[in-house]
This record gives sequence, C-alpha cells and structure tokens, in this order.
Amino acid sequence: MRVLVTGANGFVGRALVPVLAARSCEITVTDRHCGGLEQLAAIRAVEGDITDEQLRRIALADADAVIHLATVPGGAAEADPDLARQVNVVATMALSGEFAALRPGGSFVFASSIAVLGHPATELVDDAMPLAPQMLYGAHKAMIETWLATLSRRGELAAMSVRLPGIVARPRGPSGMKSAFLSDVFHALAARRSLVLPVSASGTTWLMSVNQVAQCLAHALDASTGPLPDSRAVTLPALRVTIGELVAEIGRQCVADPELVRYQAEETIERAFGQLPPLFTAKADHLGFAHDGDLQQLVRSALQTL
Amino acid sequence: MRVLVTGANGFVGRALVPVLAARSCEITVTDRHCGGLEQLAAIRAVEGDITDEQLRRIALADADAVIHLATVPGGAAEADPDLARQVNVVATMALSGEFAALRPGGSFVFASSIAVLGHPATELVDDAMPLAPQMLYGAHKAMIETWLATLSRRGELAAMSVRLPGIVARPRGPSGMKSAFLSDVFHALAARRSLVLPVSASGTTWLMSVNQVAQCLAHALDASTGPLPDSRAVTLPALRVTIGELVAEIGRQCVADPELVRYQAEETIERAFGQLPPLFTAKADHLGFAHDGDLQQLVRSALQTL
Repeated sequence: MRVLVTGANGFVGRALVPVLAARSCEITVTDRHCGGLEQLAAIRAVEGDITDEQLRRIALADADAVIHLATVPGGAAEADPDLARQVNVVATMALSGEFAALRPGGSFVFASSIAVLGHPATELVDDAMPLAPQMLYGAHKAMIETWLATLSRRGELAAMSVRLPGIVARPRGPSGMKSAFLSDVFHALAARRSLVLPVSASGTTWLMSVNQVAQCLAHALDASTGPLPDSRAVTLPALRVTIGELVAEIGRQCVADPELVRYQAEETIERAFGQLPPLFTAKADHLGFAHDGDLQQLVRSALQTL
Repeated sequence: MRVLVTGANGFVGRALVPVLAARSCEITVTDRHCGGLEQLAAIRAVEGDITDEQLRRIALADADAVIHLATVPGGAAEADPDLARQVNVVATMALSGEFAALRPGGSFVFASSIAVLGHPATELVDDAMPLAPQMLYGAHKAMIETWLATLSRRGELAAMSVRLPGIVARPRGPSGMKSAFLSDVFHALAARRSLVLPVSASGTTWLMSVNQVAQCLAHALDASTGPLPDSRAVTLPALRVTIGELVAEIGRQCVADPELVRYQAEETIERAFGQLPPLFTAKADHLGFAHDGDLQQLVRSALQTL
C-alpha cells in the first residue's frame, strides 16, 4: 500500500514517515520543502504547495491512502486568515475530493485538533461534547470534519478525523502554534535555561508525545476502514497533567532545576491550553488508540525527539 | 439601515426585497443579473459574481447588515462540485469575513437548509438532531454554519443561520434544486397539465411558501442580535404535509383534477424529500419564526407567486 503524507516534513510528519516505513508502507510525501525526507527508502517526494492542483495530481497519482497533515496552524491562521482558508479548507476539500474520484472508498486520515472543542469550561470533556471552536484554525478543522463525514456517508471515502491534543516536543523556533510554549519548556530545561510560561503551574493541559501521535495516525489508517461513528471523528486520548507536574518531571529527567521556570499566566493562553478538564475518549479507546501511558514515559519520549 | 442581499434576483431574493423595503430598509442587491430589481425604490444594484472580491468590496461598502442567499443549490452542486465549493464555501467565508472586518458585530443572516440534516430516518426531528448531510450542498451549508458560529463566538459578527425547508412555488424551469418537483406540481395543476411526481402520495415533506420564507429571513435580521443558541442556527418551522394532501388542496384551489398527478417514487428523492418525520422547532418558535399556518394558506400563498 502506498500512503501519501502531506505536510510530511513538518514536526508530526517527520515522526510519522518512519512509523509508516516500519509498517512496510510505500510512501509519497509532499511538503513545500522535502529536504531530508528522500533519504528514507521507498519514499517518493513531491515538493510544492498543497494549494497547487498540479502538485496534488502528481502526489495522488499512485496513492492508495492519504494522511493529510498539511495545515496553517492556530496562530499563523489568525495572522493570515486568507492563506489559512486556502490551505485548511479549500485545498483540503479539493485534495479529499480528488482522492475520492481516483480511489473511491479509499482511506483518508485527517489531522484534526482539539481546537474544534474551543475552550471547554465543563466538568469534563467526552465524545458527546459539542464542537465550539474559538480559533479560525479550529473552525477550519471542524468544517473539514463535516466535509469528510459527508463524503464517507456517501461512500466516496473511508475518512477518519483524529483530533490531536498538544504535542511535544516541537523543535525550537516559530511553529505558528499557540501551544508552542508546551514544547519550549522541554528545550529550556534540557539546556538549563530559564523560561517564563504563559500559564499557571496549577494549569491543566492535554499532552501526547510526537512519537505516540505518529503511532495513532498510522493506526487511524487501519481504523478508517472499520466501523466508526457517523462523524468519522474521534478525540485522541491524551494525558492530562498540570504544568507544574510536567515541569518537575522534565527537570528530573534532565537533571535541571524546575525553578528555572516561572509562570505568568496570560488569560487567552490559559483558557485555551491551561484549563482543560478531565478527558474521556471512549470512542478512541475502543478503536485502539492510546496515550503515552504516564507522565514519565511521555517526557522520556518527548525528550528523545528534541 | 442598509441591508445587502446576495443572490437577490433568485426566487427567494425577489420575494425578500419587497419585504425589506416595506420595513424601511435601504437595500443593496447583488446577483449575476440584476434586471428588474433596480425598479424598486431605495435599491442599489451591484451586478456580478459573488466569487469576485471586487464585487464583494463594492457591495459591502455601505452595508449595515447582510442576508446571504447566493448559492449553488443541491443538484447543481452535485453537477459542478468545484463551482459549488467556490460559491458556497470560499466566497461565503470571504464575504462574512470581509463584512466582519468592515462592520464588527454586524448582523449576517445566512440561508442554510434542512439539507444539513441529511435523511433523518428518526421518529421526529427536533433541535437536538445531529447534522448528517448527504448532499455536497448540505455539507457546504453545515460547514458555513460552523464558520459563522465561530465568528459570532469571537464577537466578530452577529450571525444567524436559518435552515430553509422546501419552498414553493418556484418558477418553472431548471432551478438546480432536487426538490423542484414540489413546485412543478403547482404549475402543472394551475395549467391543468398532467405530471409524474418522483415521490409517493403518502410521502411526507416540509414546506413553506416563498412569502413566508421572506418574512422569516427579514425577522432573522432582528433575531440575529438577540440571544441565540451557540450554534447560531435554527431550523425554521414548516408545515408537514403528505404529497397527496398537497395535490388535493392545490387541485381544489385551482379547480383542477388531482388525478392529473401520478406517482412514481424514486428512492433517492423519496428519501431526501418524501420521508420527513414530524418536525419540532422549539428554538425557532421561541424566537418568533412561524410557518404558513395551515395547508390552505400555504397553497394560497404559493399560488400567488406563480
């Protein structure tokens, strides 16, 4: 089976490609820059922009399945709503429609986001939670979930939307993600640098290591062809941790002083990423998706990818 | 207050414009062809395509509120998915975003559709019904509901999505609507012509006269600034009638033989428009929206617009 991975040279894509290779998939990758990816065996790289119809045609030509990661993320979407609409909505609708025409009923895994839930100020979040995005990015993801569920209902695709939680540890530098601070804390403590976090120590968030996310996305390829909810969407399980616990565990594994981290909560960031209630993901659990196990394993896995 | 009406020279728009004029609104209209509309007082007509950014800029320049009707409807969307995406999704996101930038918090009324509900094979339909579109058109409408709810949640717009039921009686000729047969039966009996309907006589459907739809859309302008559900969407009340009852009442008012109508149910049409369960619209009722009253009034109103 040949899998097309879009946005493959991003943070998640670079973790996903080796996981797919280990599963004996042939792989086509697209990204605006594919440098480094083509070193892996059984990779066909198509460099260019996902908004380009010709790129999509070349990339889709021999694809049996798609994992669609390419996106303009949260902060970047707020900064350039037109570009975000073109990539997150228009190109994604086109890509999925074109793939459905080429491979009717094919597997299409979509990297959605917990941003579709907005700022859940509820006792808990479970699969019954209504979607209430606050960010343009979250709205785009929710819209595409609707689109893919419709194509699946029509039998044109076997789509699955997996809502990713906060993912650690992203590379340093601008990611366009508003949750980037969750990765910055790994880099800071590993380098024994001080850092000010925009959330409080008692704030609670949902996390998954990038390697675990890659496992979940690969698993979604299999799950997409089985019985799924009508929405074709699941919220992935994630560990719910306090920021203070996270800092303490990173400090322990890096032999760094947790006091290097100070806390200056910013209201919008705290609401979006630092007040997340207990998370119950019965659908995803039933389908075989899993989180990192415990905080110690999550931190170890995240530090491996720094 | 100046209201921009898009798609104003369509079937619904032509009924809406006089209703707005009677409410002392100033009106800007857009459509690909505006012929006839400019005869009305206090109308500014901007002829062109809603996918054209410059047309939108000119049309929005002095608008205090928007009623967005322009769309590529059900059957036409299936025939040209790319055009439908451009009009129903891309241009609609652009129009609403551009209006929000010009008039933060302004009223934006969106003509959504019961197509967002798909084929509800349930005992009844109420406001808790999950969206499950089957047609591309229904998916587009559901996606825009999500988009407008997000902009409203952010305070950028006061949007309201009103889901229109089957509307009668459309002009003869191709409308791109899969439900066009519901209007054809008015034309046929008024002209005492025979007709074959693609649904069974016992089939049940939801209907509203175009004049009543126009009243509802004008009312939505007021309702959009009041308290609304987080989804910003309501399903409009509609009369639920059997096709046989409808044919009998049209026959009575037109003094035409109902036997002119024969029934050859087509499965997809019957499922989409001929098996609609009892409809409860508590939210819309509470907000002051109303249907035609009874079948006799609905038919009388529809015959007036033939």
